Parts: sequence; C-alpha cells; structure tokens
Amino acid sequence: MAMTKIVECVPNFSEGRDLEKIEKIVNPFRGKDGVKLLDYSRDVDHNRVVVTVVGEPQAVKEAMLEAMGVAIQVIDMRNHKGEHPRMGAVDVVPFIPVKNMTMTEAVELSKEFAKEAAERYNVPIFLYEKSATSPDRENLANIRKGEFEGMFEKIKLPEWKPDFGPQEVHPTAGVTAVGARMPLVAFNVNLGTNNIEIANRIARNVRFLNGGLRYCKAIGVELKDRGIVQVSMNMTDYTKTALYRAFELIKVEARRYGVPVVGSEIIGLVPMEALIDTAVYYLGIEDFSMDQILENRIME
Amino acid sequence: MAMTKIVECVPNFSEGRDLEKIEKIVNPFRGKDGVKLLDYSRDVDHNRVVVTVVGEPQAVKEAMLEAMGVAIQVIDMRNHKGEHPRMGAVDVVPFIPVKNMTMTEAVELSKEFAKEAAERYNVPIFLYEKSATSPDRENLANIRKGEFEGMFEKIKLPEWKPDFGPQEVHPTAGVTAVGARMPLVAFNVNLGTNNIEIANRIARNVRFLNGGLRYCKAIGVELKDRGIVQVSMNMTDYTKTALYRAFELIKVEARRYGVPVVGSEIIGLVPMEALIDTAVYYLGIEDFSMDQILENRIME
Repeated sequence: MAMTKIVECVPNFSEGRDLEKIEKIVNPFRGKDGVKLLDYSRDVDHNRVVVTVVGEPQAVKEAMLEAMGVAIQVIDMRNHKGEHPRMGAVDVVPFIPVKNMTMTEAVELSKEFAKEAAERYNVPIFLYEKSATSPDRENLANIRKGEFEGMFEKIKLPEWKPDFGPQEVHPTAGVTAVGARMPLVAFNVNLGTNNIEIANRIARNVRFLNGGLRYCKAIGVELKDRGIVQVSMNMTDYTKTALYRAFELIKVEARRYGVPVVGSEIIGLVPMEALIDTAVYYLGIEDFSMDQILENRIME
Repeated sequence: MAMTKIVECVPNFSEGRDLEKIEKIVNPFRGKDGVKLLDYSRDVDHNRVVVTVVGEPQAVKEAMLEAMGVAIQVIDMRNHKGEHPRMGAVDVVPFIPVKNMTMTEAVELSKEFAKEAAERYNVPIFLYEKSATSPDRENLANIRKGEFEGMFEKIKLPEWKPDFGPQEVHPTAGVTAVGARMPLVAFNVNLGTNNIEIANRIARNVRFLNGGLRYCKAIGVELKDRGIVQVSMNMTDYTKTALYRAFELIKVEARRYGVPVVGSEIIGLVPMEALIDTAVYYLGIEDFSMDQILENRIME
C-alpha cells in the first residue's frame, strides 16, 4: 500500500501490417517488473500500431527505450506508406501521469527519455505538448507538418532545430516527438439524424479551434450502419473541460437543428475522475472530494 | 499487481465517551500487515464508536477478533446508556466485499469470524443481512429489538436461538450481530423548502418500507442552519437501486409540492461504481464497461 507513482505511455509506431515486426516491437513491454502492457492495436490503413502501457516511471522508460531500439531496426521509413500522418519509425511517445505523479514529473521523465533515446539511437527528437520548449511545438501536428519526406528540409530551419539529437533526420527512422500530456478521453456523442453536415457544424461550434471549449477537439463522423451521425471528440484535459460540459453544449447546439442527442460512447480507457466529476455535476453533490471514493482509500 | 482480495469491516462498539477505552479498542487495527484503519468516529450522544477498516480478509478477521476481546474487557453493558439502540459491547460487525471478492466469500468470512468469536469469548452471535439463516434475521433492527436489557428474555425463545455461542446473554458484553452486506451509500438530497413535512412525505414515497425503491431507506431531516430540509437516504445496494434513480424519483415527487431539488451530499465513502454508473446514465453512454476505467486496469 505504498504511494507508487504510475505513468502511462502510449507510443505510436509506424508499422501496422507486418505482424511479426509488430510482435517484436511490443515484446519489450512484456514480462518486466513494474511494466504492464494494457493494449496494442494496429490499423492496416494507417499502417501504424498504438501501444498502451502503464507502470513505474523508470521501468516504463527503460522498456520504451528498448522498444524504440527494436522499432528502428525493423522499420524503414523510406518504404512506409499509410493514411495517418507520420514522421518517424517511432512517431510519437507521450507520457501521461496517472497516479501519485504530477505533470511536472511526467515532463521530467519525457525529457530524460528523449535525451537518452537521442544519444543511444542518433534520432532527432522534438519535445511536444507540456514538454514543449516553445509554443510552436506544443501541437504535434505543427511538428509533424511535412511528414517524414519533408523533414529533411524542415529540420535545417533554425526554428526546427530538434531539442535532442542531431540536426539531421535519421535516414531510416526519421524523427520522433516525445512529450508529457494529460490523458485523452475519446468521447463521441450520437445525434438522431443521418445529416453529416449537422454533426460537422456542431463539432465546429464546440471545439477549441473555432471558438469552442478549450480542451476539446471535434469532428463530425457518419455511423453508416446505424444511419446516424456523431460528434467525435478528443477531450484533451478533462480536469479543465469536463465531459458533461461538452455533452450539454452539444445538446444546446443540436436544438438549433431540432435534432436530439440519442446517446454517447467512450472509446478505450477513461480516468475515473472524468466520470465521477460528471456524476457530481448531475446529482449536484456539494463539497465532494475524491478522497470519498472507497477505491482511492484502499489503494494509496 | 496481484489480485488481492479486499474486505471492508465497519464494527460498531458501545463506547463513545471514554477516549482511553476507545483508543484501546481501535488499537488492534493499527500497524498490522494487510490491515488499514481508514476512520473511527465516536458519537457522545449515541455513546458509540464506528470503526472503518479495510484489508486482506484473514488479516482483518484476526484484528477484529482482537478488538472484540479488548471491547469485552473494557465495556460493561450494564452501565451503558446512549441514544442509539444497542445490544452488545460489540454491537454489530458487518463485512463488506470491496475488491476481487464475492458476496459469497464475504458471507463465508463473516461466519468464520462469528464462530471463532463465539467460541473465544462465549458471546451469543446472530448472523444478519446476507449471512442471515432466516428471513427474520436479515434486518438488524429485528434482531436488536428489545436491546441489551430485553435480550435476556428474548434469547430464550426458540426462534431467537443464536447462530453461534451459548443461548445465554453474556452478562457484561450482551450479544453481537455479524454479517456480510453490500457497501452502504449515505446519499442526501436537499430540497428548497424549510417544510420538514414535505421531506418526510417524499422520503416515504421513495423508500422500500412504504412501496418505493427496493434498496433505499429514507427519512426527512431538517438542516436548521441552512433553513432547508433534506431526504436523507441509505442506499443499501447501489448495484440494484442506482443513485440517479433515487435522485430523479425525488425530483418527480418534489414537483407535487412545487419544491425544487437544490443539491445533494454523499456522507463518507462511496464505491467508485456508484458514481460511474450515474455518469453513464446521464451521458447516455452505450456499452460502457468498468474495464474502461483506467484505474481498474492499473491496479488489478
């Protein structure tokens, strides 16, 4: 019952087709003390695998260094094609503080990892999100713009000097982004219409990009088999932009079109607090503290 | 990260005034491997202390046996007065399965404890709630009716033969109830009126006793300092009678009086699932699984 720090790491590797290579890349996360492989899911069209691992910070960092070494051996970006934008064999390595750990500690861990990885593998590394060393580098899309093929020119620009490693793209492994971020919550709200234009308009109204909620990314998506559409969101900081706030705002916007909200879904994992917070709002619970959650008291 | 079973135990002891005695009773729950003392709160008017402890089943059972021995030494029921109904020095010992543990296992643990306690201390023990050996004994209030003073006659009745121990009240320690139960959630809903009669009427409409929700006990309570009243509830099985259901039903009933629901409160601890369930309802999340809670995946 000690206060073990737990970090989550969700590396994205640029291989979604060759199962043998994928297993080799994932293998360093298996059978290690203090490291737990929660999930890995590949996408053939994206040609990419997303791994989810949790554990003690140093143990996760070491396993991640090992996996990066394997990925660099087995992936050659010169032959890589896929729908998802990408710039490196190890495209992005986010560290997420999930228990007994501050964001500052996660940033520190991401920088340790970035420094060691750049030295060991001679790959240029950009720090992003909370670890970013300039506002331009906070958004991963900004860093990745131009993708692998465009990096060879981009990296020569003084404003795109990498934070660690050589100012030269690794010939087969490209470049890597590393950073600390909040847990993402993939939260989709279903609308009682098949009109994708309505979902797109509502998405624009609730998302940060167009003047909506600060920690909300949103697009309209068609669920063709069900004949409905949804506002598909990434909630990038549920502690600041609560799930219920996005949900209620979508209901408000949907009214304009006379369209009902018919349900929602959460894809993948969600931190307990994001839903507790929502329950506390709807029940109007006064003075609630996360210390009142039985499970939080058992497992300190 | 092993699948450790965790039980909660919330014994009630009949001493709420003598701090020295209370410390002696609580002491066996301190500094033991596999046992964590979460809270103990005494009430002078009730002359009673309620202890909350969690941990590994056998370790909690052993500590509880030790604490019972101390309580029997320091409490003499012949001199006990207090507002809360009571029948023994160790009045009631509930075991609550909280993690990786079934109700069947908690019932088994409660029976092991009851058998050993009766043998060791020569105290008659009644099994109650989920451990009850007849429907009459499910409700603690039924067992306790007559209190300490009335037990000497009551225990002679064939239908009140104890489940363990002698068919004779312990002269100074009385009798004890032991059983397994679900976690209670103390959930109070505040009304925008100072009319206690309205709170009482709504309480009657939502509680099991008068035809309301099966796992809901409720009374009206005045919050004099705030000039409002509340429906004060014990939710006795949140997995069957969800918190949101009681909340929405109170809103429905309150409409009859033109009274708004102005907030709510949860007193003490609440299992995570009781609030997750509520969030899932209000957001209309489809196909949600508790396995999607990040914390549940980390700490298996």
